[in-house]
Order: sequence, then structure tokens, then C-alpha cells
Amino acid sequence: MLQMAPEEMRELAHHVTDILVGRVEGLRSGRAWEGDFKDALAQRLDEDPPETGRPALDVIDRAVQDVLTNTLRLDHPRSFGFVPTCPTWPGVLADFMVSGFNVNVASWIVASGPSQLEEVVVGWFQSWFGLPEGAGGLMTSGGSAAALHAFVAAREAAGNPDRPVAYMSDQSHSAQIRAARIVGIAPDRIRVLPTDAAGRIDPGAVSAAIIADRSEGCTPTVVCANAGTAAAGAVDPLPELAEVCAAEGVWFHIDAAYGGFAVLAPRGAVALEGIERADSLNIDPHKWLFQPYEAGCILVRDAGTLEHAFSIGHDVLQDAVWGTRHANPADRGIQLSRSFRALKVWMSIQAFGMAAFRAAIDNGLDLAERAAEYVRDSSTLELVSASLSIVCFRINPGDLSEDALTDVNREALARILWGERAFLTSTMVNGQFVLRLCIINHNSTWDDVRETLQAVERYAAEATGSSSTTGTD
Amino acid sequence: MLQMAPEEMRELAHHVTDILVGRVEGLRSGRAWEGDFKDALAQRLDEDPPETGRPALDVIDRAVQDVLTNTLRLDHPRSFGFVPTCPTWPGVLADFMVSGFNVNVASWIVASGPSQLEEVVVGWFQSWFGLPEGAGGLMTSGGSAAALHAFVAAREAAGNPDRPVAYMSDQSHSAQIRAARIVGIAPDRIRVLPTDAAGRIDPGAVSAAIIADRSEGCTPTVVCANAGTAAAGAVDPLPELAEVCAAEGVWFHIDAAYGGFAVLAPRGAVALEGIERADSLNIDPHKWLFQPYEAGCILVRDAGTLEHAFSIGHDVLQDAVWGTRHANPADRGIQLSRSFRALKVWMSIQAFGMAAFRAAIDNGLDLAERAAEYVRDSSTLELVSASLSIVCFRINPGDLSEDALTDVNREALARILWGERAFLTSTMVNGQFVLRLCIINHNSTWDDVRETLQAVERYAAEATGSSSTTGTD
Repeated sequence: MLQMAPEEMRELAHHVTDILVGRVEGLRSGRAWEGDFKDALAQRLDEDPPETGRPALDVIDRAVQDVLTNTLRLDHPRSFGFVPTCPTWPGVLADFMVSGFNVNVASWIVASGPSQLEEVVVGWFQSWFGLPEGAGGLMTSGGSAAALHAFVAAREAAGNPDRPVAYMSDQSHSAQIRAARIVGIAPDRIRVLPTDAAGRIDPGAVSAAIIADRSEGCTPTVVCANAGTAAAGAVDPLPELAEVCAAEGVWFHIDAAYGGFAVLAPRGAVALEGIERADSLNIDPHKWLFQPYEAGCILVRDAGTLEHAFSIGHDVLQDAVWGTRHANPADRGIQLSRSFRALKVWMSIQAFGMAAFRAAIDNGLDLAERAAEYVRDSSTLELVSASLSIVCFRINPGDLSEDALTDVNREALARILWGERAFLTSTMVNGQFVLRLCIINHNSTWDDVRETLQAVERYAAEATGSSSTTGTD
Repeated sequence: MLQMAPEEMRELAHHVTDILVGRVEGLRSGRAWEGDFKDALAQRLDEDPPETGRPALDVIDRAVQDVLTNTLRLDHPRSFGFVPTCPTWPGVLADFMVSGFNVNVASWIVASGPSQLEEVVVGWFQSWFGLPEGAGGLMTSGGSAAALHAFVAAREAAGNPDRPVAYMSDQSHSAQIRAARIVGIAPDRIRVLPTDAAGRIDPGAVSAAIIADRSEGCTPTVVCANAGTAAAGAVDPLPELAEVCAAEGVWFHIDAAYGGFAVLAPRGAVALEGIERADSLNIDPHKWLFQPYEAGCILVRDAGTLEHAFSIGHDVLQDAVWGTRHANPADRGIQLSRSFRALKVWMSIQAFGMAAFRAAIDNGLDLAERAAEYVRDSSTLELVSASLSIVCFRINPGDLSEDALTDVNREALARILWGERAFLTSTMVNGQFVLRLCIINHNSTWDDVRETLQAVERYAAEATGSSSTTGTD
């Protein structure tokens, strides 16, 4: 009923291959952003499911034309908004293989090969981040789920206290706040502490808050540091925070979803020093490790903390423990049925080797440094911050009010979205509306970055009535 | 650095296609289960990442040989253990396309076409389950994550009480208990109520427990019913539970991960009557809707309850709301970066049509009924329960003690695992160790089921020293 003949299966797969490879070939010459408004798309797509089938080739073509091309091309070399990713082809093929083999990495009896390979890949991550023997982890859907795992483990490690408190900076990602709320940390016990001009939390303030909370009968449960804020790439003072957590006996979680894999490049490792002291760490291979969505990971210093928090027996799973005197993957996290996310990481790294990955990460750090220099030298642009691969800046010809500056920058952003091949987004830094480049695509070149900045300068010139002024090249 | 030439990309994709199509062609003639022990696989797979790359074709072949074939073939027509799935080819191709297009369905600005298509597919589900206008939902990684969303929404709807209580049966899936614990419902406030011989909870007992808890200052927060227990396919009395929840003002969640899609077949719809009264519902298209992992879904009666629980603003996402006066997908759940799970459902249904899906679901119900009849007529097998597509039975020649029966059935299970093409698992029903068939594969035939039962009868005969006795065919 739902089966296809092998020849049709092959024909359809070749058709999809042609579309996907053609897409990659044409990526650079097209625009980074495409999209449409909800009403228009609803008109095109809202319909009841058909009673009888339609030719699969037509279904594929319609999915491409009406749906898949109405997206931001996150892997476009000029896609600098939010945190983009540019997956490798072996990573994409791995996802195809995982679906085709119908893999469920829940337990050893269901998937012994994939279970072991996930341990291998997570073991690589542990060693890159300097975690000790006895550490462990789990591939997750992404950074938000990984953070949630960390908060559950931290809460259980603290004995599931009545009045748990979490500490993070005002630059922490909303996923951390969401995770805290999900595990039952009341909003008024999530301490959002201010940051300095560089977007970094003050360890002394964390220590003081912990002591104050404890004196009021609350239980300090988790300190959540940033190893690369999403807004500005800021890295919290990790060694000092580790000291505070060790002294106070509080769980030390690090959100390294965006920035973590910078450790593979020497200057990134320097920037992220102290990351090896985390009790838990969330990282996203689907960001700076060039994997297709979804590929997140939670790492913990002591694998037992995850198993303690998540392992639950069940009669219908009693066969899952046959022949195993070790945890099954599903004992370490939220999911029971789980896709096989480690394969894409493994296949990519096997095919290209670590040297190529290091070089690709270095490329992002290089381009961000050059972008910061370019902005610094521009007469119409102002550099607001630069850390890891994120550069925040704004149009600032020097003679406009703060409100007017916000308007001009907002307008520039809109015009680039609609009129340029490039895509960037904005954020707030120190209360200022700024434009923001996140440069981590292995295909991005200096031309991509420079021409995007030049486009901003052109809008700056038009908006402020001055002539276009180009920085050094 | 991490780029491949188009010709190599095509060649590799064709190679993967040949492997996947060949696998499907050979599925029936091979064994359902393959696997190995951890030590053996560790010896084969544990190694550091290579510094330089290896030929991608070799990497693919090694992934297949050392990893992907060491798994239970969940889509084998004789794979009856746990809850299996058999994905359609358009569903598999959709996953390939989603990875290749690098889609992130976080928000409208990032993926407008996919955001709209997810609403379309979730809308189909809503109508199949009889949810009213104003309902909403979100595709999730699976049933565990979907249940977690329901528990968060229920807790927030109850005003985030200090002493929340959850109610479920002793047949509820461990994922429900895990979800309750994650959101901070203490283990001693998770009321696990006993079930009758058919595995169904008593609505009167739920009502009494709610009243008792309230009188002791606790806050009854969520009743979690089963629409198809994983152990035996039992359906809790949904209309009566809905009445209790309405009368007491408690959130009514239904776990329909395994059984939900039975509503598409007329007799399934009868069995699941009352499901339309849920406040929330978790369903798994990667089970009885024939999709590859991962495809779960949370549905809620009022979309606002999800948005209230999960929506969090963030500076770095401020551009995500441009041009939208409606929720973004990420406002409704845990994930921010999200893969595009709805595409596989949509492509499968477009290509085959609803009639084919209904027939495929009916096939599972048919085969389970015939299996139950076969067991009933067998002189060595005893029927313990049969509901939806799950048949629980045991070898019982009539003259053995309970302990001896457990040993004989355990041995039979082990011998089928190692010696037969088929795969089944066990569970506990009313304190008895039973064998269990979950029959939902659209490719399974009566021969597949009958020959599996005959194999159990053969082991029964050998173990008990009697001659093989075959039931009616």
C-alpha cells in the first residue's frame, strides 16, 4: 500500500540529488534570503490531505517550489544573521542514510552499532573540551534541549530543592531561561545579572548573589555561563566562575552552543580557557561544526549525573537491558526513540579530517577579525563589539541622536534584507540597536564579508546624505 | 575546505541510494535483528578522529558495514518488538531534502514556507483528532518530548502551583513519569493508579485521588490518560476521564504516541472515542503513520496555552518578529533551531493519499485480530490480552508453575531473537511475564505473523517435551 518499486525509489532519489546538488552549485549566485508572508503562503498551501495519491515526482517538485525555497538560505556564504550553519555533504548524506536505515538509538538491543558510534563521537567532544575520564553525554536536538538536560541534572544533583535558584547574565540565551522555567525554577528565582561593556558577567556578583540567596533559605542550584553569547560572542570569565562554583558547591553549566567549537582553533582555545571545568556543557555541532540540523549535544563531567536524573525502568522496555551491563543511550536523556545524530558528525570528520575542520573554524575567526578592522577604519560605521566570530557595529556618521541612529540602522537592515544577496540581523548591545554579523560559514570569503559591509556603507551614505565612504580593503 | 565537487556529491548520493534501495529490496529475506556486544563494537569503532580525510565512499561503506547494519531492522515485516515503524520512501526522501536545504523552522523570517507547511500538517492532525478551532500544536522529536510540552503547559495553566500532582495509570509509559519529574512534580506527587485486568484506569479512583489531594493542600495539575498503552494497547476510559477532568478543572492529557493514528480506521476511531476532549495529546507519526524517526507531535486544545508556556523574547531574535503578527513555531515549544519534520508527513500523504494510509493502518488491526484468534485456538499458547494492534500471549501448556512458565517464555524469546528472522519482545501484564507482538508495519502479511507464532509454538513444544501443536491457520 505504501511501498514503491525499487526503480521508482531510485528515480526519485536521483531527482532529489540533482535538486540538492544544483542548489549548492547555485547558492553563491542567488540571494541569501527568500520568503513570503503568511497569508500568501496559506493561500498556496492550506488544503485538506488528498484521498488518492499524486505522482511522487510532482510532490517533490512542489515541495521545492512552494515550500523549501521560501526560506533563508542559512548556508549561503553571505548568510550572517542569527547563528547560521553550512552543512557538509557527508553530513547531509548521513541524515539520508539514518532515515533510510530507520535507526532508533534508544538502546543497545535496538541499535548496538549506532549506540557505540554515538559514544565514540561524544568521546571526541569530551576530549576536545578537556573533560575527564568518567564524563559522558548525549546527542540532542539542539542547544535548547541540551541546556534543559543540564538544568534537570543540576536540580537533581542539588537534591531537588524546594526553592532552587539559577544564575545567568543578561546576555544569556533565552533557551537557558526557558530551560530553567521548564524544570520548575520560578521566574523570580532566575537571577539575571548585569554584564560589563564587553557583555561579560561579574564573578563577584555571582558569588554575592549565591551567598545572599542561601542566607534567605533558597538553594543555589546552577550557574550558567556563556562561552560565546549569541548576541556578541562574549565569553564569561570561565576560570573565575569555576572558582566561585567550586567554593560554593554549585553546579557549573556552560552554554557553548554557538561558540564551543572554537576550541579547535588555537586562538579559540585561548578565548575559551576554563571551559574544561564545567559540570555540564551544551554544544551544537549544527552550528560551528558544519552539520545539518538537528545536532546538539549535552556533555557532563560525570555521566552518572545524567543517568541519575533520567533513567526510568519500564516493563515494556525490559528487554532493552538484555546483555548490557551499561547504560542505554535513552537512560541519559529525555528521548526514548532517538534518531542517530552522531553519524553525520562522524562521517564528516572521517571524510575531511580534523585539519580541514580546524581550518574551516579558523576561517570564521579570520574573517571576523578582518570585518572588525574594516568597520574600525570606516568613517560611517562604528564598531561596537567583536568577539569570536561575531561583529556588532552600527551606522554612525557622528551627528545623529540615538533615536535617529536606531532608525537609520533599522532601515539599513530592512533594505539589505529586501535588496541585497546578503542577510544579517540586529541585536541590542549596551542598550544600543546594532547590526550584527555572525561569520562561521566555511565557504564565506573576504569578498562576501567586505561587499556586505560596503552595502551597509552605501545605505549609510544615502540615509545620511553624505557621500559613500569606503574603509580600507 | 569542507566542500566537494558537484560530480563527487552526485556520485556519493547515488551510492547511498543504491545501498538504501537495495536494503529495502533485501529486507524480507534477511533477519529482523542484528547486533553485537559493546566490547566487540568498541574494538571495531573506538578511535581518535583522523587528522586528514579519507575517501568519502569508503567512509559510507564503513558506516554501513560496521554501524548501520548492527541494528534491529525496525521496518522488517517480522519486526514486532517494542513499537516498530516502517517509513515510506517519500518520508525518507523528505528527510534528505530537509538536510540538503538546511532548513531551520524556528521562525517566519528564517523559514516561511516550512513554517506554513508545518501548520498545515498539524492542522490535519487536529481535524483527525476532532480538536476545535483555536487548537494548535508543534512537531517534536517524539512522544517523550511531546509529553514534556504537555506537562509544562498543564503546570503553567494551573498557575505553576507549589505542590502540583499528576495522575496516571500503572500502565502509563515511563516517558510520562519522566516528563512529570522534569517539570518538577516530585515523585511522591506522581499518583500511579492501578488498572483493571484489561489495563485500564478507574475514573472513579482518579476523581477520588484528586479530591483527596486537594483537601490536603496539593494542586491536581494533570491527568494523563492512555490511548493505547505501549504494553498491551489498552485504552483508558477517555469519555469518563474527560468528565472527571471537566468537573474538577484539571488538565486532561492523552498519551496517544503509539495508538493515536488508529483513529484513521473506523474501528480505531470507535476504540479511541473521547480523544477529542483532550486538553493536550501526544502522537507519533514515526510510529503508526509510517514516518522515519524523528516525528512526534504535541497537540493542544488551545494554542495559547503552549505560547504562554514557552514564548520568550530575546534581543538576538528581535528580527524574528518582522512582518509577523502571529506566533513563530519556536514560540510554542522547547526548541529554537528546529528541523522540518512536517515535510515527511506531507510528502508521504501527498504521494500515497489518505485511502492508502487508512488501509495500511487497517492492515495492522486486521493482523492483530487474526493473531489473537490464532493464539486463542492454539493448544500451547495462551492469549493474555489483545487491543488495537498489540497481542500479548504466553506459552502455557497448562501444567507448569508460574515460575516455570516465566522461564519457558523467557527462553523462547531468547531463541527467537538469536534463531529466527522475526523479532518480538516481552512485557508484564497483571504480573505475568508475557510475549508481545506489536503489528503496525504496512508490509507485514498474515504469513509473517503466523510463521512467527508457529516458531513460538515449536519452542513451546521443545521446551515442554510435547509434540508441536499448530493452531488453526
